[in-house]
Amino acid sequence: MAQNIYDDADFFRRYSQIARQTQGLAGAPEWPTLESLLPSMAGARVLDLGCGFGWFSRWAVGAGAGSVVGVDLSERMLARARSETTDSRITYLHADLDNIEFERANFDLAFSSLTLHYVRGLSALFDKVHGALRSGGRLVFSAEHPILLAPSSPDWRSFGTAGDVVWPLNRYLEEGPRAVDWLGSSVEKQHRTVATYLNSLIRTGFTIRHVEEWGPSLEQVRERPEWAVERNRPYFLLVAAQRS
Amino acid sequence: MAQNIYDDADFFRRYSQIARQTQGLAGAPEWPTLESLLPSMAGARVLDLGCGFGWFSRWAVGAGAGSVVGVDLSERMLARARSETTDSRITYLHADLDNIEFERANFDLAFSSLTLHYVRGLSALFDKVHGALRSGGRLVFSAEHPILLAPSSPDWRSFGTAGDVVWPLNRYLEEGPRAVDWLGSSVEKQHRTVATYLNSLIRTGFTIRHVEEWGPSLEQVRERPEWAVERNRPYFLLVAAQRS
Repeated sequence: MAQNIYDDADFFRRYSQIARQTQGLAGAPEWPTLESLLPSMAGARVLDLGCGFGWFSRWAVGAGAGSVVGVDLSERMLARARSETTDSRITYLHADLDNIEFERANFDLAFSSLTLHYVRGLSALFDKVHGALRSGGRLVFSAEHPILLAPSSPDWRSFGTAGDVVWPLNRYLEEGPRAVDWLGSSVEKQHRTVATYLNSLIRTGFTIRHVEEWGPSLEQVRERPEWAVERNRPYFLLVAAQRS
Repeated sequence: MAQNIYDDADFFRRYSQIARQTQGLAGAPEWPTLESLLPSMAGARVLDLGCGFGWFSRWAVGAGAGSVVGVDLSERMLARARSETTDSRITYLHADLDNIEFERANFDLAFSSLTLHYVRGLSALFDKVHGALRSGGRLVFSAEHPILLAPSSPDWRSFGTAGDVVWPLNRYLEEGPRAVDWLGSSVEKQHRTVATYLNSLIRTGFTIRHVEEWGPSLEQVRERPEWAVERNRPYFLLVAAQRS
């Protein structure tokens, strides 16, 4: 079972205040790129893995999805998602992605935003998602990029006379749990390489359609100059895959 | 046109002395992994892009290939390849991969070892290789991993009281040429992200079959303890793709 930090009251309070939770998708700078990887929502049957407060689930029905099943491990997250959702096309379910079983179904899209780096049994989950999709259905997800998650001391450093800012990468090839300090708590995430994400999908029967190593675009940096440093390494891994 | 450092006499002399040139494939620690990505060589029509001294071309006919075309930009490399090759199934051609034209052909395998990071027009080359392969044919290549090639100061550093060794990653999202000091010369290589390699293949019509972010295995580190540091970041990117 994945760690459930989101049901810790203090962590939850702090988490609820970050931009991507107060502003929803508009507070997620990678959202335009992630959106560009999505298939048409018109009438789509959608699975939202790690739905959190339901931002994507509500966006999906707003964009025309026929039905959305949002799944999360956190009861607190689901309680708020339910309280903010009136659309009967959305169903929220409490489940651990490391133990979930889908009824063999015909989803058109499985979506997951910043959740898979908590999942311990990634191959098992990909296998279940594959079974839950119709032939030709898509899996589109974002996760923290392995370069972000690997290091023993994940903070920018500067070097030498030129003052080059660098990301102190190490332990990249050593897959496994990482304890990350976030919002004043120690959060356990699972580090796996880009290759492992992709090969797990391929072995399961997915075809890779697009891979994005996301950092802010030059245009985003012009609007937010303090993000320039973020172009030194990717922040998120975005993948679009298709069930053959 | 790609830089042709290999025809510089001094560089060539130094290059000829490194392990992977004196020992061939046995001197390349990533070779067993690369070999595992290859299809059956029995009767195969093989293209060897950046064939160098012809180590792989000769291995391929030894493994049963029906014919091999080895291509390189360096006249010095080709002269030595020809002098060490007697098998009439191998043909060596002088060409720049940034300008090469293949006759529409039916190769079963296009192979490339540590050459694509010199190529400037990667998408154009992938497009031509796609056209040169039969339906179902494979492209298998290795290149320097983008994490290796991106930084402004690509040397290990150590930090803090724990003395953690780190790879000073920066400029990862800034694609383009990198001047790398190698064997006493400044060599120009082309940095592009993992995502760019993969998306270029996908757009061209290839299906990704396997991705490897190669560093020495734990077993290789037991044999060569000085390689332990290399597990902090991948060294080579290995990709197997298939023409649909």
